[in-house]
Parts: sequence; C-alpha cells; structure tokens
Amino acid sequence: MAKLPRAVTELVNNLERLPGIGPKSATRLAFYLLTTPEEYVAGLADSIVKIKSQVKICQKCWSVAEDDICEICQDKARDKNLICVVERVIDMVALENVGGYNGVYHVLGGAINPLEHVGPEDLKIGELIDRIRDEDTEIILATNSTMEGEATALYIKKKLENLNSKSQIKITRIGSGLPIGADLEYADQATLARAMEGRREI
Amino acid sequence: MAKLPRAVTELVNNLERLPGIGPKSATRLAFYLLTTPEEYVAGLADSIVKIKSQVKICQKCWSVAEDDICEICQDKARDKNLICVVERVIDMVALENVGGYNGVYHVLGGAINPLEHVGPEDLKIGELIDRIRDEDTEIILATNSTMEGEATALYIKKKLENLNSKSQIKITRIGSGLPIGADLEYADQATLARAMEGRREI
Repeated sequence: MAKLPRAVTELVNNLERLPGIGPKSATRLAFYLLTTPEEYVAGLADSIVKIKSQVKICQKCWSVAEDDICEICQDKARDKNLICVVERVIDMVALENVGGYNGVYHVLGGAINPLEHVGPEDLKIGELIDRIRDEDTEIILATNSTMEGEATALYIKKKLENLNSKSQIKITRIGSGLPIGADLEYADQATLARAMEGRREI
Repeated sequence: MAKLPRAVTELVNNLERLPGIGPKSATRLAFYLLTTPEEYVAGLADSIVKIKSQVKICQKCWSVAEDDICEICQDKARDKNLICVVERVIDMVALENVGGYNGVYHVLGGAINPLEHVGPEDLKIGELIDRIRDEDTEIILATNSTMEGEATALYIKKKLENLNSKSQIKITRIGSGLPIGADLEYADQATLARAMEGRREI
C-alpha cells in the first residue's frame, strides 16, 4: 500500500466504513475533499456533527423530527386514523417522495430478525398499539418485501387482531408483484408467484 | 419531497455534492450516520476537517506529504533519477499499490485541457524540468490514456527534448493496450489499434 499522510489514511479508513463505499471510492472521496474549497469541507464536517446533535426522534411515530413531534404528526390535514407502518425512516422518506399519501406513519426501527437477535420487543410495536384510539383505524403494513419484513407484518397483524378494541381496525399490506417497467422474463419466481396471487380485476 | 429536519436536509445536500454520490445514496448515508454511534460520526467529521489542515504538499514531487517533503522523496532507497510523471496524487497511489516501482514521482496536478482552460502553465511542468539534474534520467510519462493525458505527455516530451541538458534524458510512455483479463471482442477500436501498435516479441 502507498504510504500516505496519516490524515489521509485516517479519512480513507473512516469513509470505508460507510455503506456502499469501498476502498477505491473512499480514496477517491478523500482526495476530492483534499482539493475542494475549505468552505465546503468545513460545512460537510459541520453538518455531520449536527445530524447527531440536532435531530430528534418524534415521540409519536418514531421518525426524525425537528422537535419532539415531527411535522407530519403535527400536520392537522393528515388523517391520524390511517397509519402506515414502515421499518425505517428512509422507507417513510421514499413513500413521502411519491406523494399522495395523507395519513401518518409509524417507524418500527427495523424488522424481526432472529439471526441478528432482533425480536418484536426491540421494535416499536407496543408503541403502535398504544397509538390506536377508539376510532376506526386503518393500519397499512408497509414493511419490506423481504422474509424479515413479511414476518414482521404477520406478527403485527396477529397482535392487532387479538386486540380488544371497541373500534374497527382494518389491516392492509402494501401490494407486491412485478415492479413497473419490469419484464416477466427477468422476474424471479417468488415475485411472479406473488404477482399472480395479487392479481386484480381491471 | 419529504419534509425532513433541517439538519438532515443540510447533510443530504452536502453529501450529494461528492463525486459518485447521487440523491439516493446521499439520503441513505445521512440516515446511516444518524443511527451510527456518536464516536464514529465525530471521528469522521474530525478527519474531514483534518485533511484540509494537516496535509501538506511535497515541495519536490507535489504529492501529499506529512512534512514539506514526502516520504517517497525522502526515501534514500528510491532512485531519484527515475521520475514517473502522473496527473494526480490518486494515480500515484494506484501505482504505489501495485508495488515494485523504485523511482520517485512528479504530480502535475492535472492534464492540459483547453476546454476547461487548463494550460501547461497551470501544471507543474516547469517544476519537473527543474528537477532534472546533471545525471542520466529516465522520465516515465504516466498521464492517463485520455486525449488530455496523451496531449500532456506529448507536450512534456517536446519540452524535454528541447532541453539543453548535459546528461542524457530517456523519455518513456507507460504501455497501453488490452487490459489484463479483457476480451478482444469487447475492446474498443482505439484500444485494439494501440494494442497492435504496441505489440512486443515474446
């Protein structure tokens, strides 16, 4: 390996730990930062520190927030009886970027994953149940289409069904099947089977 | 777009400006940092600041250095009469990682590129000529195999040939042709033509 100044090696090592960044990208990024105006580099470092100190967690939906309650939960125009359950904040961001959804969210903080020692008690499932008020509620289970996501959705479904609620709880699961723009030819078997199962009249 | 806390948006915007990082990767990285131990995040920010303040430029070869002269230029075992000319520090790193090269380097700081208003006077070409001592010297032109890299190599070659040096200067260009492991079928025409031109007896 090339002998580089300690500061460069240290930055490369730190950058390599980021997801999706390998040794080559880390080196490229480090040298990019080395030749970039001081102002931007200082701003980047500053914003990295700030994300840990300034971002709060919404005490209702467990998403990120500026204050104790996030903007979506504070928004009076949002339907509080329509709760979309997602694994992580980034999933909520993806759905919000699509637009059109007028309910609120509930961020579980992951999915049930016995191999990684993540059980239901590690997720915000109890907190989800606490949110259900004595009004008709729809819970959209929008966990990922992975084994862990499916298991989590099933677990929550059973929990909600056993709930002695005075009001009606409608539980739905986001649709799965062929992604838009995909060729049948290249789709995997599980996706195709699910797409056939989930067929709808048009 | 999803409404995120200001600190998150600011970090996403800053990360997006890095080469090879698009809006999706920037968001993913920001959320990764949000959920990563404080210690690592603080270390990353710190190492970003340090790269601007602690890294010096070697006054001999214009590579990065801990002091005024880099480790390679200080290394007594390195042949000072064998100078490999590269465009950027990262090219030097790539060659050093291969190992086996026992000479020194000269970092030009880019390549001649009229479209981006980079002329020979913007590169460390004068400094390269100043380095040539009254001894036999080999200059390996290892600029990139791009139009700009080739033009720069040609420019330096002419400059060196017109030099009234008492000693002999041998000028070489790194080999170009088919990359190892490549199929002839998929190689572009320019590469194939160059590979035929650069054929060697075996």
